[in-house]
Order: sequence, then C-alpha cells, then structure tokens
Amino acid sequence: MRTLFIAEGPKVIRELIAERVALRSLYTTEISAAYEVPATQITQQELKKISNLKTANTALAVFEKPDPQKIEDSGLIVALDAVRDPGNLGTIIRLCDWFGVAQLLCSQDTADCYNPKVIQATMGSIARVSVHYVSLEETFRNSTLPIFGAFMDGSTVYKKKLPQEGIIVMGNEANGISDKISALISERISIPQFGKTTTESLNVATATAILLSEFKRAY
Amino acid sequence: MRTLFIAEGPKVIRELIAERVALRSLYTTEISAAYEVPATQITQQELKKISNLKTANTALAVFEKPDPQKIEDSGLIVALDAVRDPGNLGTIIRLCDWFGVAQLLCSQDTADCYNPKVIQATMGSIARVSVHYVSLEETFRNSTLPIFGAFMDGSTVYKKKLPQEGIIVMGNEANGISDKISALISERISIPQFGKTTTESLNVATATAILLSEFKRAY
Repeated sequence: MRTLFIAEGPKVIRELIAERVALRSLYTTEISAAYEVPATQITQQELKKISNLKTANTALAVFEKPDPQKIEDSGLIVALDAVRDPGNLGTIIRLCDWFGVAQLLCSQDTADCYNPKVIQATMGSIARVSVHYVSLEETFRNSTLPIFGAFMDGSTVYKKKLPQEGIIVMGNEANGISDKISALISERISIPQFGKTTTESLNVATATAILLSEFKRAY
Repeated sequence: MRTLFIAEGPKVIRELIAERVALRSLYTTEISAAYEVPATQITQQELKKISNLKTANTALAVFEKPDPQKIEDSGLIVALDAVRDPGNLGTIIRLCDWFGVAQLLCSQDTADCYNPKVIQATMGSIARVSVHYVSLEETFRNSTLPIFGAFMDGSTVYKKKLPQEGIIVMGNEANGISDKISALISERISIPQFGKTTTESLNVATATAILLSEFKRAY
C-alpha cells in the first residue's frame, strides 16, 4: 500500500503535478482553476475543515509519497542531525533545490519531510530533492566522501578550499551536531561572526544557506 | 509617554535586560529563576492568558521601546522594502547582528519589529541592531552610499567587487523590490541558481544571509 501526503495551495500543488508526483485526489474551491487533472469542488467551509493551515488556501491535494531511491555516494550532499523545526527543514529542502543538491540525508529524529508545514515551506521543491531518512552514523561510515560539519568553533569556511563533492552536516537547533556524529566529521567548519560576540548561533536554515553558497560559489 | 513592547521566554528577556533595554514589568512562573530584577510571580494559567505564544514559556516581560536613533549614512546597511512576514524580519535582524550590521532600514509597510513573533525570532538581537521605519525613497535620495538591490535577474554577486559600505535592499516576499525603489538602485545583484531552472526565488531571509556573507567575507 502506498503512503500518502497532503499539499495545499495551487502553487505547490501545480509544482508537484508538474514534477510527476502521483496525485490521488484534488479538492478545490475554484473548479475553474486549470489544474489539467480531475478535481472535486468543495466549499470554503469544507476546505477549512480539512486544511492544516491557519488560513486555508483554495485547494488541497493528496499525493503518493515517491518510492525511496538509492543513495548515491557522490556529489554534494546535505545531512541533518535532528533538525526538528518543520519550517527549517522546508527552507533547507528549498535551498538544496536552488543549489543543485540532489540528496538530503536526515537522521531518524529529524522532522518529517511530509509534514504539511514542511511541504508548504518547500514551495514544491520537495519533488526535486531526494530526502532519505537513515542512520547518519552508518551512512557516514560507508561513505568515501569528506564529511564537513558546521560547528561554532570550526575553522572559517571563507578560507577553506572546498571540494565539489562532500557531505555537509548541520545539527539540531538547540544542541548542534550530536557527539556520536561529531566523531565522524572530517572537517569542522564555521561561519565567522562579525558583530559583538554573543553566545548566539545562526539559525540552522540561514547557516545552511551560507555554507551551500560557499561550496557552490567557486564552481 | 513611552510606548512598550512584550518579550517572552527567559533567554530573550535576559538578553534584553543585559543590553539595558528599559524593563517595565516582569512576570514569571519561576520566581527562583535569577533575573536580578524585581519580578512578579504568576501561575501557568495566568501566563497562558497573557502569552502570544502557542506554547507559553515561563516568563513574559514588558519593555520600553528604545528612542529612535539618528541614521548614520555610513557602514553596511540593510533596507527592507515591504518584508511582511514577522519570522523573516526576525531572522534578518538576527543576521544583521551576526554580521555586524548596525542599522536596518524598513519601509513603512514592513512588518513591525516589535511584533511579539519578531521579538521571539530575533533571540534578543533586536537590542543590538538599530531599526528605522522610514521612507526608503527619501532616505536613498539623501544617501551618498552605493545602493545594491537583490533581483532575480541581477548580475551574479560572486563575481562582484563589493565595497565595505553600502545599502543592500531586499524586497517583498511575493513581489520583490517595488518599481519606485528599483529606480533608485545603483547595482542589481543576484544569487546564481545551480539547480534546474524554476521560477522560484530564494526565501528573503536566506537570500539576505547569503548576500551579507558575500559582503563580509572579503574583509
């Protein structure tokens, strides 16, 4: 049996259909909106009842989760160690799509990428990034790629010669990368702070944005 | 009469007190927590009633809004043209703090930086960044700084020699920089896309992260 997920809003739904994610059902308050697939008209009240959003949009669709693909041990890969916030995960998936990162590895305790809030935040890019829930420990042990980890006390990423292939590990919002995974990191990197020194770190999604930009800018 | 704003959670409250933002009242469910200022003990139920958060924390404080400072026409400045999402604004304030950007200019239709959601997202860095609500048009006309604007079709920021001083303009989440402001931009810059071409743009907060990193990395 196929497991399913929900997407809301015409923009996200259209993107997923365009990317050939298998559609199960589509409910919309605007039957005239051209989705080029069969849709069921419902009222605004009905949509409000089934919607996960605070302010329901005009459409809700049920899609089949794509089959998990095999992990390719090549290219630039992002790995998340217990990133819990759905908004952060969605933003990171969108960043992977932008920077051409085809594979995202998530520890089992990372937020679910099919959580409606994540689907919303990805703006459809979930269909273009292959997300794998795995034991990071096992995957890293079997990988031949260099493994970079974002740490507050890592060496500055601006001065490093960065390779085209590798795994970039981002840690939990409050605790960073876990000790178990830290032990498997080959290069500890950091984004320098220019303001007054505080104990604050950057948000994990904005840190991922900067690091991906650094890895890609040279090529 | 001073206007006031609300901050929630011990971490943010402690940061604001440490930065000498004037405290009016502090309500906490844990009177033992050392704030080193007078506090009123309230119950979890009472806190829940006055809290703006879905899940109330252990403390809520009322602070005085600091006096607006004079805008200095120097250094690196970020300007927001109708950024509406409080989470994005909060993240951008936190980024300014990280990258040592002391001044943030906001168009009058940008989200309110004293919105509780913004205060929450800034994690206390609101006290270290001076936020000004102004007519961007008028401010830009009177500025001697180069004015950079983030556009989908700008020239790649990776290949530009970026100055240490200037204004970086970021646009509205859906519509980008308005025509009125576009006319005042001296340099249109862009973050290159490496994935399959889509019509999607980066989220405004992640784009700000990458651009600030680019401006600061050379120095």
